[in-house]
Order: sequence, then C-alpha cells, then structure tokens
Amino acid sequence: MKSKGYVLLIDDDAARAGELAQTVIGQGYRVEVFTDVLEAYHFLTANQDLDVILCELDLEAVSWQEARRSLRELDLQVPAIMFSDRAEVDKMMTALRLGASDFFVRPIEDEEALFKSIERCVRQRQMRRELRESRQRLEQANTELRGTVKMLEQDQQAGRQVQLRMLPVSPMVLEPYVFSHTVIPSLYLSGDFTDYFTVGQHHVAFFMADVSGHGSSSAFTTVLLKNLFARKRSDFLHRDDDTLLSPVAMLKRANQELLDLGVGKFATMVVGLLDTQANTLRYSVAGHLPQPVLVSREGARYLRGEGSAVGIMDDASFEEHMVDLPERFMLALFSDGILEILPPKNLIEKEKYFLKVFEELAESPDEIVNRLGLDRVETAPDDIAALFISKRS
Amino acid sequence: MKSKGYVLLIDDDAARAGELAQTVIGQGYRVEVFTDVLEAYHFLTANQDLDVILCELDLEAVSWQEARRSLRELDLQVPAIMFSDRAEVDKMMTALRLGASDFFVRPIEDEEALFKSIERCVRQRQMRRELRESRQRLEQANTELRGTVKMLEQDQQAGRQVQLRMLPVSPMVLEPYVFSHTVIPSLYLSGDFTDYFTVGQHHVAFFMADVSGHGSSSAFTTVLLKNLFARKRSDFLHRDDDTLLSPVAMLKRANQELLDLGVGKFATMVVGLLDTQANTLRYSVAGHLPQPVLVSREGARYLRGEGSAVGIMDDASFEEHMVDLPERFMLALFSDGILEILPPKNLIEKEKYFLKVFEELAESPDEIVNRLGLDRVETAPDDIAALFISKRS
Repeated sequence: MKSKGYVLLIDDDAARAGELAQTVIGQGYRVEVFTDVLEAYHFLTANQDLDVILCELDLEAVSWQEARRSLRELDLQVPAIMFSDRAEVDKMMTALRLGASDFFVRPIEDEEALFKSIERCVRQRQMRRELRESRQRLEQANTELRGTVKMLEQDQQAGRQVQLRMLPVSPMVLEPYVFSHTVIPSLYLSGDFTDYFTVGQHHVAFFMADVSGHGSSSAFTTVLLKNLFARKRSDFLHRDDDTLLSPVAMLKRANQELLDLGVGKFATMVVGLLDTQANTLRYSVAGHLPQPVLVSREGARYLRGEGSAVGIMDDASFEEHMVDLPERFMLALFSDGILEILPPKNLIEKEKYFLKVFEELAESPDEIVNRLGLDRVETAPDDIAALFISKRS
Repeated sequence: MKSKGYVLLIDDDAARAGELAQTVIGQGYRVEVFTDVLEAYHFLTANQDLDVILCELDLEAVSWQEARRSLRELDLQVPAIMFSDRAEVDKMMTALRLGASDFFVRPIEDEEALFKSIERCVRQRQMRRELRESRQRLEQANTELRGTVKMLEQDQQAGRQVQLRMLPVSPMVLEPYVFSHTVIPSLYLSGDFTDYFTVGQHHVAFFMADVSGHGSSSAFTTVLLKNLFARKRSDFLHRDDDTLLSPVAMLKRANQELLDLGVGKFATMVVGLLDTQANTLRYSVAGHLPQPVLVSREGARYLRGEGSAVGIMDDASFEEHMVDLPERFMLALFSDGILEILPPKNLIEKEKYFLKVFEELAESPDEIVNRLGLDRVETAPDDIAALFISKRS
C-alpha cells in the first residue's frame, strides 16, 4: 500500500523517537528517524519528496538561530511540527520563528490533534508539490509546443518563399504603363495569386485568381495557374499557339486543368490582355468579385463581366469584353478578401464604398493601398491580393 | 513612489492601531487599518494584493477557533504577524495554530525585528504571487501555442488532403498488372510524388519524383508535375501529341517547366512507360536514387540509368532505356528517403542491403513495405515514397 506521506523524525532521544515513529507508522506514514541533527539536515536537503518534519525542539547542541538561517537558505518548504517537554514562551517563540506549522507539548495528550496536524502538513506539502509539478509540466509542454510551432512555421515560411518567387516583379514599368501588386496572405500561404508579363511586342497578359479556401491547400492550386500562363506564353513564343491572346480561351484551359487536378479546388479569376499599342483591353471575368475597377478623369467604374468560376464544371462559359482605355487611367483588380475588411455590412454597400475610395483619390496605387489600410493589415480574415495597372499619360 | 508592500492592520483599539500604522507607513508601506474584524475579513477576501496582515490577538468578541476555520477555507496565503500584550503560552499556541508567521509582545521593544519580519512576509507573499502569475502566464502561453499549432496543423492537414487527392488509386489493377504506392511525408506535405495512369489501349505511364527539400515548399512543385503528366495525357488523347510516350521527352518538359516556375526547386525523377501488350518498359532516370529495382525469378537487380535532375539547367540530357520484362515480376521505385532509414552507414552498402531485401522476399509489395518498416514509420527524417508495379503471371 502506498504510504500516506513521507515523514522525517528528528530527536536525539532514540527511545522517544522510536516510540513516536511507531505511532506515526501505525497511521500509515513512511518514517525516517534521525537522532543526529546534521545527518537529518543532509537527508533533508537530498530528499525533496519529504512531506513533513517532526522535530524535537529540546535537542542538545543545536543552535536554533543557526538552524533557522540554514533552513531559510534552503527554502525547503517542508512543513515542520515541533515538540517540546515544556510549554514555555521562549520555546514557542523559537518554533514560531523557525516557521513551525504546529507545536506540541509532551506528553502528547491529544494524539488525534497530532494526526490531524500531520495530515494538514502533508496535504499542504503535496499541494505545493503538485503546483510545482504542474508548473514544470506546463513549461515542458510549452517548450514542446514552441518546437512544433517553429517547425510548422519554418515549413510555411519556406512555402511562402516559393510562393513569393512565383509572383512577378512589382512594380514592372513599361512606359507609360506601370504594373504592381500586393498580396497579403491570411496565414503564410495565399490562395490569391496574380501575374503579369509581356507577350510579344505590344501585349501584356495578366490575371488575378482567388482559389477557394486559403492556406497551403489553396496555394497548391496557384502553382497550376502560374504554370498554365507561363506555358501558354512559351507556346505563343515558340509554337505559334495564340491561346494566351484570348482571355476566354485561357479561362477554359484553367477550368479544364483545375478539374483534371481533381482536388476539389476552384477559383474565381479575371484574365486580361492589354494592347499597349492600341491602348485597349480584352478581359474576361470568371465569377470574380469585386469586378475590376477602372479609374480615369471621368471617375471610377466597375468593368462588368459574368462567367462561372473555374474548376467547378466541364462546360463553364465565359464572355470576352473589349474596352478602349482612357489616355490616363488606373485599373485595379482585387481579390474578395478586400471586401471583408471594408466597413459597410452588406455586399452592395461594400461595392459602392469600394468604388468611392477610388473616386475620391488620385490614380495612385500607393494611396489606394494606404486608404484601404493594406499597408497596415497584420492579420487578414481572408487572403487579400491587389493588381494595379496604371497609365501615366 | 511605489509602496514596499500592502499591509492590513487589524486592531479594535483605534489609537493603538493608528500608532502602529504610522510606524509601518513610515517604513514605506501602504497600510489599511480596520478596527472591526468582520470588515477586515471582507476586505481581506476582496483584496488579493495584500502582502501581510498585522493582527492583534487580544481582540474582543473574536473566537479564534472560528476565525481559523474561516481562514483555512479561504486559503488566502497572506502571511500574518500577530501581536499580544502578554507573552503567554496559550496566546502563542493560538497564533501558531492560526498559521502566524511571527508573534510580537507589546510593547514592541525591538522595532527592527518587526520591520524585518514584515519584510520577510512581504517577500514571501510576493514570491508566491509571482509564482502564481508566472503559472498563469505559462497557462496563457500554452493556450495560445495550442491555438497556433492547431491552426497551422489544420492548414497542413488541408494541404495534405489536397495532395492525397492528387495521388492515384492504390492499388490500380489492370490484370495481370497491379500498380500501388505508399507515400510517407516527413511532416504533413510531401516533396515526393508518384503517379500512374493508362495511356490508350495498352500503355501505362508512371513516374516517381523527389522534389528537393520537403514540406509545403516542395509539395508545391509536385502540383506542377502532376499537372504536366495530366496535360500530356490529355494532349495524347485529344491532340495527337505523343510526348507522353517518350520518358525522355517528358523529363525535358518537366525540366523546362520547373525552370520556368523559377522558385529554385529541382527534382530527381524516374519516368516510365509500360507496354502491357508487349510486356516491355521504356524508362529514363533523372538523377534519381535508388534506381528502380526489378525483381523476378532470376533475382533482384537495379535498372540502371544516368541523367541530370530536372529543374537545374536548361540543357539537361536524359537517356532512354528499353527493357523486356519477365513473365512474372515486380518493379519497385523508391524515393531516396528510404535510404536514410536503412541500417548500413554508407550509400554503397545501403544499395546492396536494399537489393537484398528484395532478393530475400517474394514479389509482394506488402512484404517489402513491412520488411522495410514503412507500415510502422511514424516520423521519417525525409519524405519516403514507393511505387510498385507487379505482374502476377
């Protein structure tokens, strides 16, 4: 049977010590008896599992003042019950100053009171021990958790580095056009993605994509889109394949390849082709919100367009739109994460508010980003991506 | 100036209380004086920031036995110093049983001793408070860390689900051929990837890829490879494009697309095309170790092949090999993660050991997986992937 507690008994009278020990053992405690104080002291320092000390106060050759100092330095926190043959004020003062939990005068008349006192001390000691142990467990758990977080974060950071390298240079200047982007992942990896690049002498292809979900599962899918556009650019340059010149054809390819990937991810997209010679834009919208915003001296307006998201159904259909661009303009494409951080409550109001931000500001992406708070966002509820195309004159 | 500690003074003699309060305030403490015990008790229960109680023992109308019980229930752990006009044994016993830290007899002759005693009590109390606070901080940190780990793990799990859905059905039975695979990520996401699928009436294309690094950054790149093979299968079926029938041509495409992705990731690969009619195999190895193992009645041997890894340099070159397959065989492709868990110390010995495992066992993937311990691996130092192609008769 497990003992009720671990008792250190100190008394230089061996017979008296043995008698008390027997009584205490009879109560179910494990007892160590020491008749030599120094030995007891060494034992005490080496045994953190002691629960209570029963100590004779009338020990010969013991300076309690010294003992007190030693015990203070030890900070043992083992409760002590002291015994004396005499009920004297100075004895009791010594016991008090030693931090005794209780004091009994021999002969012990009320054994029950002693047993209760021992029990209390043991309980108190065990509570402190449990507190200390639970603290140690917490510290260890925290160390382990920190390790796990570090490992997972490093993994995500590495993934993020890969994703950042997939994004185009920002800004990319092709006078008088400037292309720039901002991508703010809600975690480390983003399901939003954007790209732009020149195609031949006077075209720039671009897209904004928002893959369903966020984090690494969605980020996976952005690789496919990046690869699709890079491939079609290569096919255009080397294989007389002009799929890239048709936003609708590109959306159809994206739709098919997402379905073929078969991982249950879909994406809303805007694909565009800018003709820098004619200053015109072909574009197609695949279920994407907010729709592109065109800002010019005449104000800000949405470039409308309907179409399914890509990666949901085989027979998705898309519309192609053609716009003559103003002499000076800014075209802004955002992912729908932006809508979540706009103040208005419902979508219609959010879209109005969004347009107003553009109308009130000059045609500078930096001002828009600042006004929408994107340069200050630390944790976004959803990924947020923005693509800006500006023409300066 | 910040006070040295917060003192509760209880004495029903207002004048005496005021005098002691003044002395203690003079030492830099903040003192609350109560002449009514019940009020003091209420104050005590409501003010956890108290550091020490200075309490008159000779209070009128106070049953210390009751007080003791109440205080025990409270478990306040505020140290108390008690005062009495008389140095009597029963007074001191009361103080002791109340858990007093010290006891002074009025008139207090040694004020320094009292100040030291107060200081000790305050220090003791503050240490306990700090202990409790540090425990609370630990608990809070623990909760936050658990939340972070959960969020990151959920993200990785979602990514893993996507990756699992990218893997082919296992086993895929095309009598008398059986295709199966095992992928064990070192974290959640794997940089190892494998795929197999039928091409036309009597071909099966397959590959094993091991992207540099591991985790999400490498897993990203596997999407590109999955997509490349899916695309070329589609091109074969719908566009008369037979790139897929040439392992070398597929490796060249993989090389180019990895370079175009521009994220600094490369991969070792084995690409194969099984002709199920002729029972022949075309394959090409791109820097991959261990090389494919062919097991038949004649024993186990490596299918040799040299070639650069894909995604490193533009002019990578690959060799195509052609093998007539035995009537009954097992072909096993592993990623190099397997080498790390084999007992021998160096690569040459590991390769010998690996071959021996196959030689000693029948042609069953399950037995191989079991013998190599893959069904028991919990944390692998690197991702491990295995692809098995067996012909039963």
